Amino acid sequence: METVTYEDVAGAARRIADHVLRTPVLETSPGLFLKLEQLQHSGSFKVRGAFNRILSAGRLPDAGVIAASGGNHGMAVAYAARALGVRAEIFVPEVTSPVKVAGIRALGAEIRRTGAVYAEAAQAAAERAASTGALQVHAYDQPEVIAGQGTAGLEIVAQTGGVDTVLVAVGGGGLVAGITVGTGALPSATPPAGPQPVPTDPQPVPTGPRPVPRIVAVEPERIPTLHAALRAGGPVQVEVAGVAADALGASRLGRAAYDICAEAGVRGLLVTDDAIVAARRALWQRHRVVAEHAGATAYAALLSGAYVPARGERVVVVICGSNTDPATLTTG
Amino acid sequence: METVTYEDVAGAARRIADHVLRTPVLETSPGLFLKLEQLQHSGSFKVRGAFNRILSAGRLPDAGVIAASGGNHGMAVAYAARALGVRAEIFVPEVTSPVKVAGIRALGAEIRRTGAVYAEAAQAAAERAASTGALQVHAYDQPEVIAGQGTAGLEIVAQTGGVDTVLVAVGGGGLVAGITVGTGALPSATPPAGPQPVPTDPQPVPTGPRPVPRIVAVEPERIPTLHAALRAGGPVQVEVAGVAADALGASRLGRAAYDICAEAGVRGLLVTDDAIVAARRALWQRHRVVAEHAGATAYAALLSGAYVPARGERVVVVICGSNTDPATLTTG
Repeated sequence: METVTYEDVAGAARRIADHVLRTPVLETSPGLFLKLEQLQHSGSFKVRGAFNRILSAGRLPDAGVIAASGGNHGMAVAYAARALGVRAEIFVPEVTSPVKVAGIRALGAEIRRTGAVYAEAAQAAAERAASTGALQVHAYDQPEVIAGQGTAGLEIVAQTGGVDTVLVAVGGGGLVAGITVGTGALPSATPPAGPQPVPTDPQPVPTGPRPVPRIVAVEPERIPTLHAALRAGGPVQVEVAGVAADALGASRLGRAAYDICAEAGVRGLLVTDDAIVAARRALWQRHRVVAEHAGATAYAALLSGAYVPARGERVVVVICGSNTDPATLTTG
Repeated sequence: METVTYEDVAGAARRIADHVLRTPVLETSPGLFLKLEQLQHSGSFKVRGAFNRILSAGRLPDAGVIAASGGNHGMAVAYAARALGVRAEIFVPEVTSPVKVAGIRALGAEIRRTGAVYAEAAQAAAERAASTGALQVHAYDQPEVIAGQGTAGLEIVAQTGGVDTVLVAVGGGGLVAGITVGTGALPSATPPAGPQPVPTDPQPVPTGPRPVPRIVAVEPERIPTLHAALRAGGPVQVEVAGVAADALGASRLGRAAYDICAEAGVRGLLVTDDAIVAARRALWQRHRVVAEHAGATAYAALLSGAYVPARGERVVVVICGSNTDPATLTTG
């Protein structure tokens, strides 16, 4: 089994420290934290994995890097490629929003619109990579990508001093798997004893014992990749639909993500599209946080009552993307 | 001279700790921090001063609290009054934006639209307070209000470990004066030696010597309250116009704010309305931060080149308000 260790995540944090933001957390009420990862470069967490994958590769091929994406991963790979001075070719499906297509183009990547949903774009990208020799940067199913996303987990622990629960959205599973490892929630990958240095953290790291958090994976009921996988005992194909399809629109969970989630006992929660839309509006109206639908999906579990914290429970909600037209916050 | 001491600010921090957010800072590049005060309750820093003024008053009159405001202060007073279970009556001028009028109303305050600009609403509020006996919460010119705003300065020091420069917008001067005291930049109000406890800070406060920051006050060239005051040797009347008039539209600087700024050698910078509009858009496009025009005014000094940091200079830019229609970010 190809997995991801705590050391892989710590190594990723060192590797990408100069290229990504240490996004802040906002404690909106005692013990309830929003991890504001929608403020990340390129507007989503995806740059963490993209930089770690590319920087782990050693010398890059002349053809540069290639990726398939519903949009956010494409923006992230384009951002990383530009920062590192390499070519990028991005395959996106028709479902990708105009905001994201424009974003990828503005970052200087070559864009190819192919297929109706992510899986078809991914197939086209793999074929193209085989002919050009470009380095593939997968949207979720590569160990370096999962380790990169896990650096958000290291930060969550350092910034909050530890929480009981992490609510995080799921598409292909790269972020939830990475955060499971990075927060120390994977039994076979527990962090070493003692305070953990976080390379992107300028402040002293609080010491002392911390709870092992419970990871709650939230997904739209119209794209239940994790739910279906946990039920079937392994990743299976699901239909992709609904308001968050351009960002959570993987049609099956990644294999490594499944293994990590299954071992760690990650709990899956489904939320409706209506709950996601309401959560996105509430994030703006209550907290002045602009998120895309996928970015508001974890918060939807709280707002809709699908997840009700116990008294005194410390919870962090990962707000993972903001590649959206803000005009639709008040009209859409 | 009625002034504000460092101990006043530290006392305010203890007093309001349960009611305001410790807003995060975002380090967007090495040494450049955004203080994300637009995420504060009610959408601006104004709740800090409002809570401190109201909570300092002891028993409140039956008539509750009264304020005049371009909008943000009214939302803050309405928010604080609702949280504390007291009545609020808010006088706003015609220049106040619909978003803010709706916000004040939604918070349950009684609203009175009076006069063309803030100064006229303030006159009406003072007369009304004299007849009802309500507690006046001034938008900037009360020591408790300045001390409350200064708590943002304590947080800036704790969260960044100290900076060389603070860029902050000016209207009536409450925020710039408070931050001058709270960051230790006022010679007659230096903080005690040793690490400073910040009541709203859950993390250990870094210790060691810190630079005394230079405070740079940024104002729209169409509302130069501080500029005019520094030139005249005291607060003077100015005309009020331009894109930020509903939030920075005081027609003269507060007296205590003047004294503090003059003693501390606060430097004033003017920016154009065009620079403010560009800064507001850039905050969204580059950093996914939604600010109103006033909230983007300090950032405009950096973006326009009106302020150019030296190599290695550590700078924090205070983003102070977000009471705006996000639809206008991409269309307005």
